[in-house]
Amino acid sequence: QKQIDSTIAKSIIPIEKQELLKNVNLIANIRAAGNAYFDQDGFNNFRFQMEQFRLEFKGNISKRTFFRFRDRYTRPATSESVDNISRSTDLAFVEFQMKKDSEFWYMSIGKMCADWGGYEFDANPIDIYQYTDFIDAADNFLTGIGTRFTLSKNHSLSFQVLNTRTKTFEELYPNDTAFIQQSKAPLAYIANWRGSMFDGKLQTIWSYSLFNEAKNYYINYASIGVQVTPSNKFRVQFDYKWCSEQIDREGIVSNYITDGANYDDRVAQGTVYNSYWTRLDFRVVPKVNLFFVGFIDQGNWNKADVYYDNAESKQKIYTGYCYIPGVEFLPSKDLNLKIFVSYVGHDYRFTDFAKSTLNKTNYSNNRFTFGIITPLVFL
Amino acid sequence: QKQIDSTIAKSIIPIEKQELLKNVNLIANIRAAGNAYFDQDGFNNFRFQMEQFRLEFKGNISKRTFFRFRDRYTRPATSESVDNISRSTDLAFVEFQMKKDSEFWYMSIGKMCADWGGYEFDANPIDIYQYTDFIDAADNFLTGIGTRFTLSKNHSLSFQVLNTRTKTFEELYPNDTAFIQQSKAPLAYIANWRGSMFDGKLQTIWSYSLFNEAKNYYINYASIGVQVTPSNKFRVQFDYKWCSEQIDREGIVSNYITDGANYDDRVAQGTVYNSYWTRLDFRVVPKVNLFFVGFIDQGNWNKADVYYDNAESKQKIYTGYCYIPGVEFLPSKDLNLKIFVSYVGHDYRFTDFAKSTLNKTNYSNNRFTFGIITPLVFL
Amino acid sequence: QKQIDSTIAKSIIPIEKQELLKNVNLIANIRAAGNAYFDQDGFNNFRFQMEQFRLEFKGNISKRTFFRFRDRYTRPATSESVDNISRSTDLAFVEFQMKKDSEFWYMSIGKMCADWGGYEFDANPIDIYQYTDFIDAADNFLTGIGTRFTLSKNHSLSFQVLNTRTKTFEELYPNDTAFIQQSKAPLAYIANWRGSMFDGKLQTIWSYSLFNEAKNYYINYASIGVQVTPSNKFRVQFDYKWCSEQIDREGIVSNYITDGANYDDRVAQGTVYNSYWTRLDFRVVPKVNLFFVGFIDQGNWNKADVYYDNAESKQKIYTGYCYIPGVEFLPSKDLNLKIFVSYVGHDYRFTDFAKSTLNKTNYSNNRFTFGIITPLVFL
Repeated sequence: QKQIDSTIAKSIIPIEKQELLKNVNLIANIRAAGNAYFDQDGFNNFRFQMEQFRLEFKGNISKRTFFRFRDRYTRPATSESVDNISRSTDLAFVEFQMKKDSEFWYMSIGKMCADWGGYEFDANPIDIYQYTDFIDAADNFLTGIGTRFTLSKNHSLSFQVLNTRTKTFEELYPNDTAFIQQSKAPLAYIANWRGSMFDGKLQTIWSYSLFNEAKNYYINYASIGVQVTPSNKFRVQFDYKWCSEQIDREGIVSNYITDGANYDDRVAQGTVYNSYWTRLDFRVVPKVNLFFVGFIDQGNWNKADVYYDNAESKQKIYTGYCYIPGVEFLPSKDLNLKIFVSYVGHDYRFTDFAKSTLNKTNYSNNRFTFGIITPLVFL
Repeated sequence: QKQIDSTIAKSIIPIEKQELLKNVNLIANIRAAGNAYFDQDGFNNFRFQMEQFRLEFKGNISKRTFFRFRDRYTRPATSESVDNISRSTDLAFVEFQMKKDSEFWYMSIGKMCADWGGYEFDANPIDIYQYTDFIDAADNFLTGIGTRFTLSKNHSLSFQVLNTRTKTFEELYPNDTAFIQQSKAPLAYIANWRGSMFDGKLQTIWSYSLFNEAKNYYINYASIGVQVTPSNKFRVQFDYKWCSEQIDREGIVSNYITDGANYDDRVAQGTVYNSYWTRLDFRVVPKVNLFFVGFIDQGNWNKADVYYDNAESKQKIYTGYCYIPGVEFLPSKDLNLKIFVSYVGHDYRFTDFAKSTLNKTNYSNNRFTFGIITPLVFL
Repeated sequence: QKQIDSTIAKSIIPIEKQELLKNVNLIANIRAAGNAYFDQDGFNNFRFQMEQFRLEFKGNISKRTFFRFRDRYTRPATSESVDNISRSTDLAFVEFQMKKDSEFWYMSIGKMCADWGGYEFDANPIDIYQYTDFIDAADNFLTGIGTRFTLSKNHSLSFQVLNTRTKTFEELYPNDTAFIQQSKAPLAYIANWRGSMFDGKLQTIWSYSLFNEAKNYYINYASIGVQVTPSNKFRVQFDYKWCSEQIDREGIVSNYITDGANYDDRVAQGTVYNSYWTRLDFRVVPKVNLFFVGFIDQGNWNKADVYYDNAESKQKIYTGYCYIPGVEFLPSKDLNLKIFVSYVGHDYRFTDFAKSTLNKTNYSNNRFTFGIITPLVFL
């Protein structure tokens, strides 16, 4: 009898496939919404949008090899000039455990998420109602190598060396090629610390990055994220991001100076961005989560005085204010599904200099939004 | 002994994965053919074509959650301006059972098939030899929300509110933006009835849709599909479609008026399309299916008299005749595979007005075609 | 007791899914590298690149039906004008066993690899450090039908009829449409022999192809690949490829003649390409493989004398020399993973005619490269 039963049991999927199936996940990361847009003059447009749709495979291919692949269906599929892989592909990397049965040291290679700090950036994109201008404009998925050390159960450090961008210097700065020399090794160097203290009630994701954007042109970026979870009903996240760009990689300020009299088609130099972001979650009952997201983006142009006599030496250009109150319903126990209703208020306020000299006017880009968020697990 | 055996049985794939595997399907919808093209002057070109290649995942993610995703590899992958998701993606929606253990009420959100009536539209695209002009030109996959009621085992009703298009007004009607005001909520409203009578021998898919294409410009679309299955060897399908467009969304007539003397680059207004479609299937023996598809497309321009004195108030522009006799072989019992040989005759006949005033001449686009049709199930 | 156990065993994945799972593979073909580029003037640029990322599904869908699909994330997803399927899709074909339980005869339809001879072309693209100019410029994945005969355990023959290209004549030869008439059936005919002799120590992949590129314009292509495996530590592969093109489909020579005084914007006629390629592998120990790849590409323009008096009747244009020494480490027993370090030297030398009359100068495109190669099996 034992023979028969074990034969039945053995006749099915071969052992290696069973192991793979156990460990591999196929996920459709979805955020679908109905959006009513309002600008400074009132209601503007209603439409349904697939805000996020990213298909993901991940899992342990062998005991010491982890793989992750994520591809968007909301971006053109291309072949990028620097790293050769499609812009639609967020992640395509392999990570190796460097010592057998030890979680101390890992190395990875491929297209990966730049390991920047902050809880906004660390969230699954489907959970974001509105990215800060800074993260929205950044190139977040870059190709290269990374290493990660688990110092203890509560602390880990990571280091990455990545291409500084996915497009060439000529593509990003077409009007500067005559003035600025390219870097021969345009790389980004990223260090990150993830900490957990007081039984996980205080957590941190901090990072510092240096980008070599062109010969003698660097970008310094620091981000500090803190998460406090005083009780299992309440959670506070706060990020501070600071970025100083000898050449304006983000392009936010460059975009705002084009209406000035002295604009010369070149990308701005000496821009500095500050971003303050917070998210509060209050889980009233297991099926209802109240949240509030608020952030302030601030852009400066330190070399404005080269072009304009009336500019200060550290000229502020604009401040963006965003406030997002909302409620998320979690109807299901077996499915990670959120139904949300929220309002996104987003105001752009320009400084007097930007108004008078760069001809900017304040504007708003608000929306009332409802929909679903789910990382649907197929397998 | 029981211990041992059940351990073996338990050691394999975890219960949740087993459940998922049971319910999830991965399908490659394929239609590959060799096509010899003939126009009015005779043989023109032979080539092999992957007429359809659509990869599909679908299944029940949880007891009350169904998901379906289908993506074409025969369309550019882009990010569409209105709904943000790739034009190559046909389907990406989640459907929820609203009441536990009840099949009465379902709701869905995402990019879905507009629930239009008619058996032509209801068929898997791999089974279509030639779409009617009307369906060929339509935007069939739209983003929004839908609801569905199973009234009884034999009757169901569905309602959808979808974006009216995937591209913006400016993109579709670039020469009309100075004359026509956009709609602030450009939505399509779709109602559908699916019925089954006389033990399923008579079935119906009827629908009515209203599109708000621009401010004060609407499109009305009705389609009526009937299927009669007198015996298990014989099946008749018939569709009638009627569409009245205050602004010519389909663009078929607009495309034919460009050679007229008074053409002003704007999209035609007041177009009306009629389409009559039938498919007959006769399963001679289980492995052989004889079929005939025939359809008539008819396009009118009700505002032709605004531009041309010699036009009637309801001016017919063209009639398209298509006839497709063929045979399908079904060689396999375990695989849904059809090998087909067929001739597609497609003649376009213009009215005297279109010939004399719009300089159109009759033409044909015929082909002899052979190949395979299969929805290949991987998993 | 038996009842209980067999119930457990039966409750899991249904039989059909078990069968499918056994036979289906999901593979991420990856080649990721850091590349330091050097030209004739020295170090030029360093960057990380996802050199290859091709996702693949393959398997037996039923006992007599095999399917294979492979798609690149390093190419734009488009809809090609001739065969309708995306340029990013390498493979999308179905293969049928024509006689039950017999491995003698197979037929396939879809987009497939042109069954060209040679071991360079036969290798998984992730194992190639640098393709010869000839293979690099060729359209290797074409749509059509194929047939394959297993003559014996050691010998097989295959024949294919494929579209000669994925783009139209107008797209590929825009400046020749006024001079050359298109072919009405632009097809490629390919014959291939795969042999194995002396217990597999001597193996061959030979092929001959004829392309009908335009009316009265043909391309003849022969390739001869030989593999000798004297011991399980040592392997030698050698390919010879010859291609004579009445119209320069490859475009390599056409690209080099644009700087000549008499260039008329048309594609070159009468080009002949020769390519000699070899790869030596020496598996020092199971975890270390030393290899050397070397190849010579040679391009001629037989109709140069129509344009230039100083040209020979069979004018040589350039010779490319490539030499690739390197080492591959295979750290894992359960995973097909190679870590490589290599130098790719690639020199282009022009003939005196090309230098003086076509204004070409010799150049180099070298690189130092390190990274990983793995066909990661998900499932």
